[in-house]
Amino acid sequence: MADAGEIASPVQELLDEVHERIGEITDGSVATYIPALGKADPKLFGLALATRDGHVYESGDTGVPFTIQSVSKPFVYALALHDRGLNAVLRKVGVEPTGEGFDAIRLEAGTGRPLNPMVNAGAIVTASMVDGDDWGQRFQRILDGLSAFAGRDLSIDHEVLASEERTGDHNRALGYLLRNAGTLDGDVDEALSVYFMACSTLVTARDLAVMAMTLSSGGVNPLTGRRVVGTDTTEHVMAVMATSGTYDFAGEWLLRSGLPAKSGVAGGLAAVLPSQLGIGVYSPPLDARGTSVRAIAACQELSSRFGLHLMRPVTGTTSAIHRYLRGDAVSSQRSRRFAEREILRTRGRAIALCELQGDLGFASTDVAVRAITGDHENVRWLILDLHRVARAEPVAVNLLDTLVRELREHGVTTVVAAEAARSPLASAEAAFASLDEALEWCEDALVAETGPPQEADRPEVVPLPEQDVLRDLPAGVLEALAPLFEERRLASGEVLFSPRDEPDESLYFVVSGGLVAQVMEGDPAVPVQVASMGPGTAVTELTVRRDDPRAYRVVAAEPTVCQVLTDAALKRLERDRPQAVEALHWAMARSLAARLRRADRLLAAHVASGPRPGKPERELG
Amino acid sequence: MADAGEIASPVQELLDEVHERIGEITDGSVATYIPALGKADPKLFGLALATRDGHVYESGDTGVPFTIQSVSKPFVYALALHDRGLNAVLRKVGVEPTGEGFDAIRLEAGTGRPLNPMVNAGAIVTASMVDGDDWGQRFQRILDGLSAFAGRDLSIDHEVLASEERTGDHNRALGYLLRNAGTLDGDVDEALSVYFMACSTLVTARDLAVMAMTLSSGGVNPLTGRRVVGTDTTEHVMAVMATSGTYDFAGEWLLRSGLPAKSGVAGGLAAVLPSQLGIGVYSPPLDARGTSVRAIAACQELSSRFGLHLMRPVTGTTSAIHRYLRGDAVSSQRSRRFAEREILRTRGRAIALCELQGDLGFASTDVAVRAITGDHENVRWLILDLHRVARAEPVAVNLLDTLVRELREHGVTTVVAAEAARSPLASAEAAFASLDEALEWCEDALVAETGPPQEADRPEVVPLPEQDVLRDLPAGVLEALAPLFEERRLASGEVLFSPRDEPDESLYFVVSGGLVAQVMEGDPAVPVQVASMGPGTAVTELTVRRDDPRAYRVVAAEPTVCQVLTDAALKRLERDRPQAVEALHWAMARSLAARLRRADRLLAAHVASGPRPGKPERELG
Repeated sequence: MADAGEIASPVQELLDEVHERIGEITDGSVATYIPALGKADPKLFGLALATRDGHVYESGDTGVPFTIQSVSKPFVYALALHDRGLNAVLRKVGVEPTGEGFDAIRLEAGTGRPLNPMVNAGAIVTASMVDGDDWGQRFQRILDGLSAFAGRDLSIDHEVLASEERTGDHNRALGYLLRNAGTLDGDVDEALSVYFMACSTLVTARDLAVMAMTLSSGGVNPLTGRRVVGTDTTEHVMAVMATSGTYDFAGEWLLRSGLPAKSGVAGGLAAVLPSQLGIGVYSPPLDARGTSVRAIAACQELSSRFGLHLMRPVTGTTSAIHRYLRGDAVSSQRSRRFAEREILRTRGRAIALCELQGDLGFASTDVAVRAITGDHENVRWLILDLHRVARAEPVAVNLLDTLVRELREHGVTTVVAAEAARSPLASAEAAFASLDEALEWCEDALVAETGPPQEADRPEVVPLPEQDVLRDLPAGVLEALAPLFEERRLASGEVLFSPRDEPDESLYFVVSGGLVAQVMEGDPAVPVQVASMGPGTAVTELTVRRDDPRAYRVVAAEPTVCQVLTDAALKRLERDRPQAVEALHWAMARSLAARLRRADRLLAAHVASGPRPGKPERELG
Repeated sequence: MADAGEIASPVQELLDEVHERIGEITDGSVATYIPALGKADPKLFGLALATRDGHVYESGDTGVPFTIQSVSKPFVYALALHDRGLNAVLRKVGVEPTGEGFDAIRLEAGTGRPLNPMVNAGAIVTASMVDGDDWGQRFQRILDGLSAFAGRDLSIDHEVLASEERTGDHNRALGYLLRNAGTLDGDVDEALSVYFMACSTLVTARDLAVMAMTLSSGGVNPLTGRRVVGTDTTEHVMAVMATSGTYDFAGEWLLRSGLPAKSGVAGGLAAVLPSQLGIGVYSPPLDARGTSVRAIAACQELSSRFGLHLMRPVTGTTSAIHRYLRGDAVSSQRSRRFAEREILRTRGRAIALCELQGDLGFASTDVAVRAITGDHENVRWLILDLHRVARAEPVAVNLLDTLVRELREHGVTTVVAAEAARSPLASAEAAFASLDEALEWCEDALVAETGPPQEADRPEVVPLPEQDVLRDLPAGVLEALAPLFEERRLASGEVLFSPRDEPDESLYFVVSGGLVAQVMEGDPAVPVQVASMGPGTAVTELTVRRDDPRAYRVVAAEPTVCQVLTDAALKRLERDRPQAVEALHWAMARSLAARLRRADRLLAAHVASGPRPGKPERELG
């Protein structure tokens, strides 16, 4: 900016504030039941937040490695679901909360299933279910999978692994109980080795944020862009994290933070807000239930500061309708003859223009569909303008397609205006890159249907005496001009003129066919139509400004015939009949002013709020 | 529409399809442990879906009354939280899943709390915690509260109540255990009476949908508009429904349907998708865990058809930036003198224009903020255009305000363009109703800063020889015109002209002050500025079209001085010096054409896609 100093990020500022406040908490104690964990520095505190587009905000000790422990469980569960499918995994491991601690021994009566994959018993089973012919392959599959979630190659802490192996009798007991119940096949020690190694994988708080974001985004790693697991799998995993992620604290955790999460005894925690972000925390001191004290506090604070509670109601209404107009309140930029304008003025209500907005989900689209069906009297053409739509979920496309088909059965033709003329609606009659082009198309259809039948079968031709600029000239002027006209024929796509240093003042009268004016917009530049001129209208190179740095050209949209009053002819006439030239100039000025007013009107419609059905209110704060 | 027949609703069609398919399921059996429930017709099946704006879709037996039973529990919990506050209620009732059935006897060791308010023991306690001096008042509070959730006066099924009272020994035992543990105070029978009456309240599937939608919307009933409980309360209640709503099926329920819900033994079920919708189902046959078989199937089918899973990742990106431009690529509609246009052309990049879009939450706003801070070289003025923003959550406003304050410290002035000039950002320098006005304001600031210093202290005055239309006239013409000018002074707000049947062809040259052209838009109509004309520009009544049905007028924006060439003076001149009038007409046509081009450009910018930082892609299908 004007000042060369770096702009501080508002999110970074808020994250740092939370880190500072929560860093003052000194409650809890470092886990000791795995002796190697007891050496951790209780002062360490890292807080990271990953976004969908791969940005990672970090505060504090986010680069310090520690063993992932139980935070591996949702990710290993995801790999098992990916490799075996939901039903196969559900036959071996339930998804019900236990109401007990991480070391719960209870297996489901009748089935012998561990209650869920977030307690040790369940995780031992899911680790045994990933792809691999032996324990070595299964462990490699898990290490590769965790690395894919993190977006970098992870490794093992062998000291912690050895410590887990030495002190893992409780888990060993679980293994034998599972095999006794028929839930775990094969060698118990090998199954436990895979489980212990998964728990001994080294990660950082930053890694956990990225891993969480990969779940949150539906399985695509935000850093590498690589898909790790499918969307259905992430839905299932996050649901289990919501109900069982923090053992016998899961209910209060979800109530207070609203973030599905998983904690680990080394002090790590990963939390997700679906589609939005992933949080990674590292702080070794734990509460009595084995969850990092600062991680709980930090997630609650972030949730409340940033409005992240999964159950939060959004503010404002969810109307997807930005504006709903009829064709008598707005017109395209096409220069039209008086007779056509009269048709549009008197019958324009047959065209409805609906500008949708925002993110189209089920609820917002439903409201829009009801508004459209609720105000349909005499509508024959419907334009759905999607330029303000940031995102449409499949259900929104489904509902709109159903509406369009239903409307067609009632005689209504629907067209779409969307970026690059790409319509998401398979059912729409046509798609246009701009609202103006869509509106022009509907107007043409209305005019064609209403116009005199004898014109319908042949290309429209407007002879000079009926041209808009010429028909109101004082008596005798047109007769004086007549011998000066020259005919110019253009093929479709041929350029009539484009900017140059010395603009030609020649006047072009469109007799048949049509011209369009285009400006170049965007990067890379593409031509965007800003006006179209059909038979009966006039155009002059004066509309190309010398100091305009951009290309602005007039092109034939179809085979076109013009009658031209050349600059030279005009200069001759000026000598002989100055009043004729003056009358012509006034007529041209009137025509230009009329076009300007139409542009103003469309622009005003774009920048102002029009009447909307359903009275959606915008609440912005 | 053209055809008078009714347009079928796409949502209704899909709901009817689901109802028909699920209606074929005949599994499960009607509850008999309360004898009166055993009489229910197992074929009954009602499916209702309520939306945030109060529309209720219904399919099947949605008007058949039945007793609410345990579906009352989340709503009674909400009333207790509302009346006593979260911490007071948490001291008596936990929020952890039990992993057991609805009649679980387990109380938390040490505290004597029932594990959560969705099992009978918890609900007996929460029913005893609502406001009221005795059991009668507490019951009335609950009946009034449930009625407020439903949006109509509910009543009691006395036959079922009597049946519950007669056969409620298990619940009576729970009551005494609770009093023994110190969790329940007072008379056990009275507490149970309140609980039994809450369970015996008669509702329909339609009522449950509305009650669920009231939770989902943050506590406001969508039919009555009345707030029943606060937003924090609904967040807490839905979180508990997510973890414990269907007892020992809660985990799999959330995994499969993704909808927080509560079931009841009479066959009712209420499900929510926060902010979006409420679902009510009634079908008496239950599965072994006491939940309606068809309700489970219907919710799973609706969730998958409509994309309702709480953990679903949204499709597409979440960029909040629709377009980001600099002031050298777009200009306001203000008619400017050549010198000013040169300043804007060469220094326009000091103005940045950022159009935000969609629903602004944490993630989308964060992306936008990073895009803005990432492309800031030489920016001095930033326009945030919010017209395409459907909704902004508090965190979005917070992040943008922080950004604006940070930018100010780096010398960047931020203005907002938003509907009715209402800026949600307290920190913005100014707010405008349209992008064009905001852009004009920034351009003025840039011109003022860059322009010759001697002009800075006094109002700008542009004498006739420096006027845009007049300064390029052939030699001698201005001298011929000079004696014909008349001065016209306008007060701020004074109308220069508005449409009439016979437009006056007088030419007005703005010498000091400024004019604006306004059209009336909307219902009720409000003036919207479509062009502004500062010193040095000319305007004529020709720009008011006779057949335009709408008000279009030109008004002084501040005290203004014009020099006028009246219609009469022009006619006199035409007789004496036709070439002078002709030259004037060409000059006017040029000026009109230039304005038209600027309008075209702004319009093209509105309808076309421009370059965007961060390359957000729109995915629409």
